[in-house]
Amino acid sequence: MPRVEVFDRGHVLEKVKELFWSKGFNGTSMQDLVDVTGLNRSSLYNSFGNKEALFETVFKQYQEDTKSLFKDALKDADSPLDAIHNIFKNILHLILEDVEGKGCFNLNCKTELSHTDTPIKAILKHSEEGTLQLFSGLIKEGQQQALINKNDTPENYAYYLFSAFQGLRMTGMLTRDYKTLKNIIHNTLIILH
Amino acid sequence: MPRVEVFDRGHVLEKVKELFWSKGFNGTSMQDLVDVTGLNRSSLYNSFGNKEALFETVFKQYQEDTKSLFKDALKDADSPLDAIHNIFKNILHLILEDVEGKGCFNLNCKTELSHTDTPIKAILKHSEEGTLQLFSGLIKEGQQQALINKNDTPENYAYYLFSAFQGLRMTGMLTRDYKTLKNIIHNTLIILH
Repeated sequence: MPRVEVFDRGHVLEKVKELFWSKGFNGTSMQDLVDVTGLNRSSLYNSFGNKEALFETVFKQYQEDTKSLFKDALKDADSPLDAIHNIFKNILHLILEDVEGKGCFNLNCKTELSHTDTPIKAILKHSEEGTLQLFSGLIKEGQQQALINKNDTPENYAYYLFSAFQGLRMTGMLTRDYKTLKNIIHNTLIILH
Repeated sequence: MPRVEVFDRGHVLEKVKELFWSKGFNGTSMQDLVDVTGLNRSSLYNSFGNKEALFETVFKQYQEDTKSLFKDALKDADSPLDAIHNIFKNILHLILEDVEGKGCFNLNCKTELSHTDTPIKAILKHSEEGTLQLFSGLIKEGQQQALINKNDTPENYAYYLFSAFQGLRMTGMLTRDYKTLKNIIHNTLIILH
């Protein structure tokens, strides 16, 4: 009879994600993963594969979580411009909640792994292109509705927003002062009005 | 008679910096350092200390290099506003030259180490506060000379620029397209005019 998994897969992956997010891929050892999950090495290997495979699984999951964050911002918005404001508001909330100062899992992986030859590189690129497309679509729609000016193209404004988005996340690792961060967002989005 | 160092210290540290920059602190092993420098472990330990000490030495050196970059931007500028433009131009050049896609050593260290309890955290914080002060000083001067508007305070504009500066560096890891990056800079700095 095959041995039955006696652990909650979602719960284990959540722990693994938090650990990789905090310590990075290279900073996390198999022993760290054993310690945080409470599973032994062979259970971890049999259920999820090696360290690379585990990382890939939770990193893909994080991309889904990020998509949900964007979807929420869009759902609660009255207009495309409002959706852009919501996205930045959501990032601000993520920063304020990040008391440990772990930063953004994607940006951490980007600086650690994006110039190496790993499957992570492709996942990250796909995710970043998705963010650019989302911004570009919102800008285009906002321009059509005359809510956003046409001083620049949807593509250029999308890159500008994408860049500001990452900058805000990085700045949130230095300060979590609400007014300071809110002001950066305010100054960033003025250009669209 | 004590043994004499028969290597070029500056040359060795340059190799070490490039390696840490590319692979990160955790991704670099003592063996990697032995391989890249051509020195054996005991020479490395005796001359520079352990991996942490080596990292700290080259990271401090990088802060000096960054200061020189800012000084150059200021030296060649006709006005405080021009100096800000030059700083962003210099970042753009750094990105275009970064064919390997290693990104910014400071931002790589920030995501990897800033929430850990290492001396790097304090060096990085000091450096970031220096950048904020530099921007704030330039904005203040520019406002006094009526070259930069007074729609926001020097401190708030400084945080905005600091955030954009980091965002641009991160965006430069996705694309090195000159026009795209130049356009982000253009849109970022419009607000000051």
